[in-house]
Amino acid sequence: MKQIMKSLILLFGFFILGTATAQTKPLDLNISQVGSFHIGGRFVEVSGKPTKEVVFSPGSAPAKIDPNGKYLVEQMYVQYFIPKDVKHQLPILLWHGGGLSGVTYETTPDGRPGWQQYFISQGWKTYVSDAVERGRSGWASPDIWPSDPQFLTIDNPWHRFRIGANAWNDDPVKRAQYPGSQFPPEGYLNFMRQVVPRWTTTDEATIAAYTELVDKVCPCIVLVHSQGGQFGQKVAQARPDKVKALILVEPAGFGDPNKASALKNIPILTIYGDYIDIDSRWPKIRQTQMELNQKYIAAGASVEVINLPEIGIKGNSHMMMMDRNNLQIAGIIEDWLKKKGFRD
Amino acid sequence: MKQIMKSLILLFGFFILGTATAQTKPLDLNISQVGSFHIGGRFVEVSGKPTKEVVFSPGSAPAKIDPNGKYLVEQMYVQYFIPKDVKHQLPILLWHGGGLSGVTYETTPDGRPGWQQYFISQGWKTYVSDAVERGRSGWASPDIWPSDPQFLTIDNPWHRFRIGANAWNDDPVKRAQYPGSQFPPEGYLNFMRQVVPRWTTTDEATIAAYTELVDKVCPCIVLVHSQGGQFGQKVAQARPDKVKALILVEPAGFGDPNKASALKNIPILTIYGDYIDIDSRWPKIRQTQMELNQKYIAAGASVEVINLPEIGIKGNSHMMMMDRNNLQIAGIIEDWLKKKGFRD
Repeated sequence: MKQIMKSLILLFGFFILGTATAQTKPLDLNISQVGSFHIGGRFVEVSGKPTKEVVFSPGSAPAKIDPNGKYLVEQMYVQYFIPKDVKHQLPILLWHGGGLSGVTYETTPDGRPGWQQYFISQGWKTYVSDAVERGRSGWASPDIWPSDPQFLTIDNPWHRFRIGANAWNDDPVKRAQYPGSQFPPEGYLNFMRQVVPRWTTTDEATIAAYTELVDKVCPCIVLVHSQGGQFGQKVAQARPDKVKALILVEPAGFGDPNKASALKNIPILTIYGDYIDIDSRWPKIRQTQMELNQKYIAAGASVEVINLPEIGIKGNSHMMMMDRNNLQIAGIIEDWLKKKGFRD
Repeated sequence: MKQIMKSLILLFGFFILGTATAQTKPLDLNISQVGSFHIGGRFVEVSGKPTKEVVFSPGSAPAKIDPNGKYLVEQMYVQYFIPKDVKHQLPILLWHGGGLSGVTYETTPDGRPGWQQYFISQGWKTYVSDAVERGRSGWASPDIWPSDPQFLTIDNPWHRFRIGANAWNDDPVKRAQYPGSQFPPEGYLNFMRQVVPRWTTTDEATIAAYTELVDKVCPCIVLVHSQGGQFGQKVAQARPDKVKALILVEPAGFGDPNKASALKNIPILTIYGDYIDIDSRWPKIRQTQMELNQKYIAAGASVEVINLPEIGIKGNSHMMMMDRNNLQIAGIIEDWLKKKGFRD
């Protein structure tokens, strides 16, 4: 009996290991070109501040730094990947949410392929950007942006992003991850390593930079997440001839309701994960987009809403591009793109 | 005569265009895998601060943000590229300089392939990271880092990085680019878009994160630039068994002279551009490294110094990975790697 139990435990262990290996197996991406650029920004003059002497590296000669002068701020970083075998005409642009950077779409925090890798592997020209003031886009001094940046404690997003009922806690019992949750808890602290400071006063600058990006690389498909909902919808409203399809992944920012008709020719997919009904904030956030969608539909737009639990896909958090079934969801997005004629 | 002049102008125009096209032609990179991760960092507790209500996106529900609690700070972002046809055993790690991020090594500011693309195209497993507090690594709140970050005006690096005699100016006469300079002035403002704020008090944290990176992905070759000189040398001194070769591109930060013997088995290449003798700071910066190199040599290390003008390569700025002849210099680095047995 003891022997059988041992064998069963071994077998179960193998099964777990086997599954983990399958999930973390890298995709063969077959990339021909990788490149990056910065776009946008504006010049700002600072004056009336004292000069400083700064030793930039210990032992190095001090350099005189005069903070007065002309700065270039509010530019945006973009990295692109061109597969060797491009299978679709339009590129796909992946725009991240608040307090994050383009890293959102790269390798998941627990080491599996993210949506960036998935779309590249499927033959899409893929652009991943860091919104203004995030990541490699840089940010401006307090002389230029007087408002304070926001920082997140490690316990904050666990509940706010609908992973568990309580705040993050090292103790699995205390953090109370939702039953059936697809978010990999072993990757949560790595996810928090991806979080970057954010301002709440840079939306106009961000929209300006994304608009310049669209002018440069589109016609295209734009996929946005969370705060990016505002940027995707407003930029599409500003450039309805350039944004050919809009994928809104749990949008927490919104388009201009007075410009709904600008989107009349743009197919829109809106997609939500699980646990929304039991959350204090997400029913309202979803409702705001649903009301906006009605205006888009009234204007003639083709709008599809997928609530994943309604099609039998359960357990997804706000960070569905990192959840264990992230590639399944990417596949659903691709199916929609196919239905709309953007994919063979 | 007029006709001949016209033809000559046309011919000259073609020649210029032809050259530009050759330079910006993308390299076929033949990449199998792209991925990223964050590494390192530490937990910090903040307490005694008031709670805030923050509306993260206009129209969204306000979220309660309590700044007190546990933060994860001083982590580092790393992106890697694995060629389909890996030609060399060891990966090469590219570490950038101060006020910059890994973007330093990507596409040049005027749109040509950078060293990242070059090394990938030559079959190297290539790792590009953003040092702690730069780019996608994120940064910590003033509650955690009390010192001020530094910001650069657009005119500052033009002279400090030995591109021209004066500060940057839109007027080519006033900025006085050095005769024969290889830096593409049409890319200068794009270069300034790459600049990110920096602190001067995070060296220890940065060394800790780079050390974790080396522990994770090495044995390897480490190539550093400018401020990275300190990080490369100190991390190699901490992990002499893991860093198999060290390439110091105009180091402006330095190793620990008391630990020179740790590098006795590590081949070191130190490489400098042009205009050092006419600069107010660079003779001292180079001299500091030369004195340190003597200690490395005394300890038994193989150290090579290349002053590019001495081998007939003129006009290089401090940003030689962006200069017009950047791939020629990458080739010189590869020749040295070959001589040292790290390349076929």
